[in-house]
Amino acid sequence: MKKGVLHFEVGEQIDLYLLVKSATKGIASNGKPFLTLILQDKSGDIEAKLWDVSQGDEERYIAQSIVRVLGDIHHYRGKNQLKIRKIREKEAHDPVTISDLLETAPLSEETMMDKITEAIFEMNNPNIQRITRHLMKKYQEPFLTYPAATKNHHEFVSGLAYHVVSMLELAKSIATLYPSLDKDLLYAGVILHDLGKVMELSGPISTTYTIKGNLIGHISIMVNEIEKAAEELGIDGEELIVLQHLVLSHHGKLEWGSPKQPIIKEAEILHYIDNIDAKMNMLDRALARTKPGEYTERIFAMDNRSFYKPTFHK
Amino acid sequence: MKKGVLHFEVGEQIDLYLLVKSATKGIASNGKPFLTLILQDKSGDIEAKLWDVSQGDEERYIAQSIVRVLGDIHHYRGKNQLKIRKIREKEAHDPVTISDLLETAPLSEETMMDKITEAIFEMNNPNIQRITRHLMKKYQEPFLTYPAATKNHHEFVSGLAYHVVSMLELAKSIATLYPSLDKDLLYAGVILHDLGKVMELSGPISTTYTIKGNLIGHISIMVNEIEKAAEELGIDGEELIVLQHLVLSHHGKLEWGSPKQPIIKEAEILHYIDNIDAKMNMLDRALARTKPGEYTERIFAMDNRSFYKPTFHK
Amino acid sequence: MKKGVLHFEVGEQIDLYLLVKSATKGIASNGKPFLTLILQDKSGDIEAKLWDVSQGDEERYIAQSIVRVLGDIHHYRGKNQLKIRKIREKEAHDPVTISDLLETAPLSEETMMDKITEAIFEMNNPNIQRITRHLMKKYQEPFLTYPAATKNHHEFVSGLAYHVVSMLELAKSIATLYPSLDKDLLYAGVILHDLGKVMELSGPISTTYTIKGNLIGHISIMVNEIEKAAEELGIDGEELIVLQHLVLSHHGKLEWGSPKQPIIKEAEILHYIDNIDAKMNMLDRALARTKPGEYTERIFAMDNRSFYKPTFHK
Amino acid sequence: MKKGVLHFEVGEQIDLYLLVKSATKGIASNGKPFLTLILQDKSGDIEAKLWDVSQGDEERYIAQSIVRVLGDIHHYRGKNQLKIRKIREKEAHDPVTISDLLETAPLSEETMMDKITEAIFEMNNPNIQRITRHLMKKYQEPFLTYPAATKNHHEFVSGLAYHVVSMLELAKSIATLYPSLDKDLLYAGVILHDLGKVMELSGPISTTYTIKGNLIGHISIMVNEIEKAAEELGIDGEELIVLQHLVLSHHGKLEWGSPKQPIIKEAEILHYIDNIDAKMNMLDRALARTKPGEYTERIFAMDNRSFYKPTFHK
Amino acid sequence: MKKGVLHFEVGEQIDLYLLVKSATKGIASNGKPFLTLILQDKSGDIEAKLWDVSQGDEERYIAQSIVRVLGDIHHYRGKNQLKIRKIREKEAHDPVTISDLLETAPLSEETMMDKITEAIFEMNNPNIQRITRHLMKKYQEPFLTYPAATKNHHEFVSGLAYHVVSMLELAKSIATLYPSLDKDLLYAGVILHDLGKVMELSGPISTTYTIKGNLIGHISIMVNEIEKAAEELGIDGEELIVLQHLVLSHHGKLEWGSPKQPIIKEAEILHYIDNIDAKMNMLDRALARTKPGEYTERIFAMDNRSFYKPTFHK
Amino acid sequence: MKKGVLHFEVGEQIDLYLLVKSATKGIASNGKPFLTLILQDKSGDIEAKLWDVSQGDEERYIAQSIVRVLGDIHHYRGKNQLKIRKIREKEAHDPVTISDLLETAPLSEETMMDKITEAIFEMNNPNIQRITRHLMKKYQEPFLTYPAATKNHHEFVSGLAYHVVSMLELAKSIATLYPSLDKDLLYAGVILHDLGKVMELSGPISTTYTIKGNLIGHISIMVNEIEKAAEELGIDGEELIVLQHLVLSHHGKLEWGSPKQPIIKEAEILHYIDNIDAKMNMLDRALARTKPGEYTERIFAMDNRSFYKPTFHK
Repeated sequence: MKKGVLHFEVGEQIDLYLLVKSATKGIASNGKPFLTLILQDKSGDIEAKLWDVSQGDEERYIAQSIVRVLGDIHHYRGKNQLKIRKIREKEAHDPVTISDLLETAPLSEETMMDKITEAIFEMNNPNIQRITRHLMKKYQEPFLTYPAATKNHHEFVSGLAYHVVSMLELAKSIATLYPSLDKDLLYAGVILHDLGKVMELSGPISTTYTIKGNLIGHISIMVNEIEKAAEELGIDGEELIVLQHLVLSHHGKLEWGSPKQPIIKEAEILHYIDNIDAKMNMLDRALARTKPGEYTERIFAMDNRSFYKPTFHK
Repeated sequence: MKKGVLHFEVGEQIDLYLLVKSATKGIASNGKPFLTLILQDKSGDIEAKLWDVSQGDEERYIAQSIVRVLGDIHHYRGKNQLKIRKIREKEAHDPVTISDLLETAPLSEETMMDKITEAIFEMNNPNIQRITRHLMKKYQEPFLTYPAATKNHHEFVSGLAYHVVSMLELAKSIATLYPSLDKDLLYAGVILHDLGKVMELSGPISTTYTIKGNLIGHISIMVNEIEKAAEELGIDGEELIVLQHLVLSHHGKLEWGSPKQPIIKEAEILHYIDNIDAKMNMLDRALARTKPGEYTERIFAMDNRSFYKPTFHK
Repeated sequence: MKKGVLHFEVGEQIDLYLLVKSATKGIASNGKPFLTLILQDKSGDIEAKLWDVSQGDEERYIAQSIVRVLGDIHHYRGKNQLKIRKIREKEAHDPVTISDLLETAPLSEETMMDKITEAIFEMNNPNIQRITRHLMKKYQEPFLTYPAATKNHHEFVSGLAYHVVSMLELAKSIATLYPSLDKDLLYAGVILHDLGKVMELSGPISTTYTIKGNLIGHISIMVNEIEKAAEELGIDGEELIVLQHLVLSHHGKLEWGSPKQPIIKEAEILHYIDNIDAKMNMLDRALARTKPGEYTERIFAMDNRSFYKPTFHK
Repeated sequence: MKKGVLHFEVGEQIDLYLLVKSATKGIASNGKPFLTLILQDKSGDIEAKLWDVSQGDEERYIAQSIVRVLGDIHHYRGKNQLKIRKIREKEAHDPVTISDLLETAPLSEETMMDKITEAIFEMNNPNIQRITRHLMKKYQEPFLTYPAATKNHHEFVSGLAYHVVSMLELAKSIATLYPSLDKDLLYAGVILHDLGKVMELSGPISTTYTIKGNLIGHISIMVNEIEKAAEELGIDGEELIVLQHLVLSHHGKLEWGSPKQPIIKEAEILHYIDNIDAKMNMLDRALARTKPGEYTERIFAMDNRSFYKPTFHK
Repeated sequence: MKKGVLHFEVGEQIDLYLLVKSATKGIASNGKPFLTLILQDKSGDIEAKLWDVSQGDEERYIAQSIVRVLGDIHHYRGKNQLKIRKIREKEAHDPVTISDLLETAPLSEETMMDKITEAIFEMNNPNIQRITRHLMKKYQEPFLTYPAATKNHHEFVSGLAYHVVSMLELAKSIATLYPSLDKDLLYAGVILHDLGKVMELSGPISTTYTIKGNLIGHISIMVNEIEKAAEELGIDGEELIVLQHLVLSHHGKLEWGSPKQPIIKEAEILHYIDNIDAKMNMLDRALARTKPGEYTERIFAMDNRSFYKPTFHK
Repeated sequence: MKKGVLHFEVGEQIDLYLLVKSATKGIASNGKPFLTLILQDKSGDIEAKLWDVSQGDEERYIAQSIVRVLGDIHHYRGKNQLKIRKIREKEAHDPVTISDLLETAPLSEETMMDKITEAIFEMNNPNIQRITRHLMKKYQEPFLTYPAATKNHHEFVSGLAYHVVSMLELAKSIATLYPSLDKDLLYAGVILHDLGKVMELSGPISTTYTIKGNLIGHISIMVNEIEKAAEELGIDGEELIVLQHLVLSHHGKLEWGSPKQPIIKEAEILHYIDNIDAKMNMLDRALARTKPGEYTERIFAMDNRSFYKPTFHK
């Protein structure tokens, strides 16, 4: 893998193509505008300031544009920052495309789809299996490219599918250890629980919430979708209600956005599996930026805790 | 109106047809079974104990059966109780039917339906109007007979429709005083917000929760129904999303079962209107049993408060 | 109505008399002082920065001074801001007075007083009526000019009276719909509930909290006033206690500053009416600055929610 | 001291005059009424059951009546209980009066009044001193006999005065250790903080809440009284506001019934002193009934904790 | 397996040896004492009432005694209850011992110890390995027989070891799926986290809390033990601190009894693993007593929820 | 006492040796770095900005360095600030040492140690006395110089010992007023409760948390130490458990970091004494900077309240 912007040490100089993740205008205390740019490549993102910007700069350096930057890495308030010496827009002949700069899941779309197909194939209950297959087919395309969230965890291209696939592996292990669990329900729950995010979120890049996302939310969106799928497929058993329950209770508590707490065993376990995979992802990303003997940045979604990396961990 | 069981004073004797609302078996400390009966007529309900019951009694005096009771009203722990002297099942020739004994809304089904039809008629936005009319038509029959809840407020025959009609009146007043409110949205919200209860609850008498009610809940059930109505009617505007938002946010807070807090003005106001009408109903029913200068029983759904009836109130 | 500072679009130039609502000194990172001015006229207020200020500027541009400003409206972090080109103090001959620049209630003081007098006139209970009239007379003057709060809702000249008059209208409607309500109590509660604010707050302009306001609060201040009024009028019935209860419980919950929760029906309803009118005012003001299809700023006093204005709302 | 009902061991027989603290009717499962009596003398109270009671018994054995009881102490669910063999009403010639049976403070009324007078005498600020002296004089009589509460702590004759005197001692010690404290304020706060209880509670025996107590509460009652005292005495300094603040903030938090949190140092310390004395009283009373190596009953007002008495404590 | 008390249906007669788990005396409303017995064998426990008991009965039928009971299973308030016809104490010649009647873990002590030894053997970090082995050896005997709790989950003989072994399996799976986890730490955390329970609890049968358990708790007890183990073994690396952190943070939140929240990744995961295994155990036991299409009893330790068993589950 | 940096008024010029408490780098909006210095002497600390700093400045002006500063006191956002005109490092011949500039407890180490020795000497229970003396001796040196915290209260040299000595005085008074208290336990609890801070914190100057402090915390550290002390001294009575309980419960509630709530009377009182002394210290320090008739800064550790200093307080 090429050396990315996060692999440089303080004091080193960089000359890289980077993607503008976001650009926020500020007014400096001398009255002149400046831009706070978040620049990213596959290795992650870094903050940079561009001082004394012109009207043209403001229009040029916007979210999703690609730039070439010459600059230095320096240290500021416990984080690396990029000091820009020179910046310009990508030109036509520059050998870089947006997908070269986006962080993506470590598994290919094909591999992930295979794993999901396999899990659906393993199901014995035809009602559960048919609803799951129907919805996966209907939303396969966005499912394979959307992130799982705008921040906090799995916030990268194909993050949603990757989150689901990791959860599936975990679900398989747990179902093996506790054979009283209904594997069909658990797999279906894992595959469908966050699928509504393909309507809640705007897309794979510079992701924001849609109006529907803000007003209805991925949980209720998906409950609607299961209802419609069952209608189209002519399914009307208790499985339909239970599947909807799994989706709508997967946040675990009312105050976390589930209109009902889990009252099906597999719904309770689904919530735990979701939680473990999300938290592992947050922790791994935070600890990857931390040296042994030091603390991570505070992680907002984990009670704002700062985790310690033991010195005996490499 | 005939003198009902709640109109008798302590020390008076009664001889009435009553409906068994619930019957719970207990084992007395002498090892013999007894029944705690909740008996009701249009005036309300009263507790009675039946001691030393036989197997036959247990099978005879069950929920929804009608009985003829001779007994005395006495006072026990601040409440009236019925001391049964004689009890027997309704016989074929007895001049009483279940509807003679059920508490029902003070307005007729026709009057209530007229008021709702009128509100729908007043709507200007065709998308909102058509969805509301479609769903009201689809569920008109149970809507007009179901209670609004199993306890707490409007827990009587046609309580759901009566709650909606009272809220509509309130919505009209408020929309007049604050003309910035979108009347169409507000009326539709009022009419649809609790309509899912016709699937969440079991029916107008001895009402319990259905499995679907416990696993999905009336809020999500109704969001599903709006989605399907829009599909059938070929409606796809933002009104669809906003209407669903009104229904799913009408409990006001996540911890009260709404998966989203209101973020539409009319959704916020809908929550207030729902709250006022429910609380007025609870308070009026509790205070109706209380004399001036005394306190009501504790009202569980109002922070367990006991309200005082001033001596200058008659 | 003249075109106010809030009616200008981004890019337009203004030349207006404005009132300095507040002026806060900052030190720019070049070590030089600057002022953050909040400037207002009847249309609302806008932020402006004045760079490199002299000692004289600091003394000149203070709260409640009037200035003439030449400048441009530009957009900054989702809000309009004023870029000052030229600023000077109001001079003697300038055709502007402070009341030309203050936001005031949309009803005249006379109209509002008439409505309150009418409500008092309608009361039947002489004890309630006499206490209410006595206190209204005693504090009529500040009551008609004070705001209802320093921020959040009705924070303009005569905001307190306007809030009370709106609540009175709402109380009338509700008392009509629910005839079991004691209108006398409800009206008296509406009129007196916030009257203590004329001692809690400093006055109609650049309003702050008094020491008495911070240490005792408008609720306890008013309970004291009712006690003294009753003593002066020789009233000693239960109405006195109930009126005090209405005032002291009107925040609804202990954690919101009421030393007792409502346990009188009208006290409970008073709390709801207060809440609806305050929230409608917040929402209307926030949505007035928002375009259809967009979200309001976060409203701190409403759980920090950002409300959406549907595209089908004009 | 005579051997009281609490000094008897399990298995011993008693023959004592006792005061009926409360009598609650129950219906046994054989349909016959019984009474649960709480019987007390100076040593404390004990529960007793009277089975198969007649109408006459119900009217005879009511709160505040004196009875002579022959019975046995036995052990039931971790508490001593009294098994009644014979019970009769006190007759005219019986050598017992109600005050022989009531638990009272361990100090005489004179001693307590002397300590309070002394503290008032020590005050230097005339405004604080005059208000305190005026109110103490006005309510001296009930102050010296009322309990401090209906349950939880100092729930005995003269409990209110005893609580205040204990707090005064504590306040003196603390003011000596932290000389920055204003002794005048602290003493006045201690003396006045609960004085409103003489209007909140019904009296020294079988104490209940008055209507005024439930609707207004001792905190607001006392704030009113301070206001009126100042008016009568012609006092209008900031001391008036600060004294009222001490009283109204002495519960420490809004959710505990104070409409304002303390923002005067002495108000904060007053809350701590009140808390320590109340909790010491609860703990001492609970531990007095507990043997070393055992646990007290759960103490509801202390988070329902059960305290352990170490074996090395006698 | 022999047919146990829980395998009988309503209406069937039993004649079984049973262990008295607990016996609580009550006084019936006719004044006569009765006993509520919880009787158990390997299949689980059932409630029974013994009426009109003599002093001898009270002394005979106490916790941990073995009885022979003839009786009928009947249904009472949604649970099976045992109606005793005849009961007598176990006599010398009766062919039954206490271990025949105790519910025990489904794995033998040897098997469980082997799995733990294997996990210790797999550890690479010598400090972690030595501390874990030392403590396991020191407390192996009680560890293999104690329950994991007095109620809620794994409350049977060898429940503690079984809980640890199940968690170890889960830890292995998770460490395989998320290879960034430090297996040594995770295994050691699993093995040690609840080991303090051998001092917090009284023993394997009729388990209660010790004084040390109530005053110090198993978490702090174990932190002490790790400290002492390290001292004896001469270990002083950061592993010591981190191991103690894993134990003391394993309840996840301060309000759940951990004096520190987890800030080591493996500590966070340990908390999840503990939670999943405890909840699976609760759910499996509750659902084992529930028929498809019905709800379990409310489970106190899971927010008092009642879980539904779908009809499509056998 | 010499005139310290906090004794100068706005407008005055200073020329003082000061200690750099902390130095934080910022980037000004012109892109140039600056330092925010907190400078202190015995009188307290003040903020100062140093603009346009060089690399050398950054390395020179770091925490714990001593500087000589010429500057002016000015007022900024309600606080005094120091405007630096000239600054240089302390040179060898400058007549100033670090202890001349550090705020320290108002009592000498000898006086404080004497008071503690005296309290230990007064103890009657040999187990409690020996454990306390042993630990005090072991950690006497850091105990006498460490602060009690990094911020909030007693955050100065010897703050820990001073906090303990003040608490001891308070404990003596309270034990005299409530003679049922076990003085030995209470004194030992006071002396030991925070002793773990000598391992939780880094030292007396520029104090931070150690890794052990963050992962284990002073409470669990001290429980370990008591365990080890008892082992070394061969003590094994219940006193050992109770002493550990006092230390581990002294934060009063689980959510404040105590793994057990107090269930020993002296543990409960210890928590109150700790609280009073900490809050008095916070309040006295905040009010010392506040003029009569004004409010303190918000005090974060006291619910973010701002306290009022009455005008009748000098």
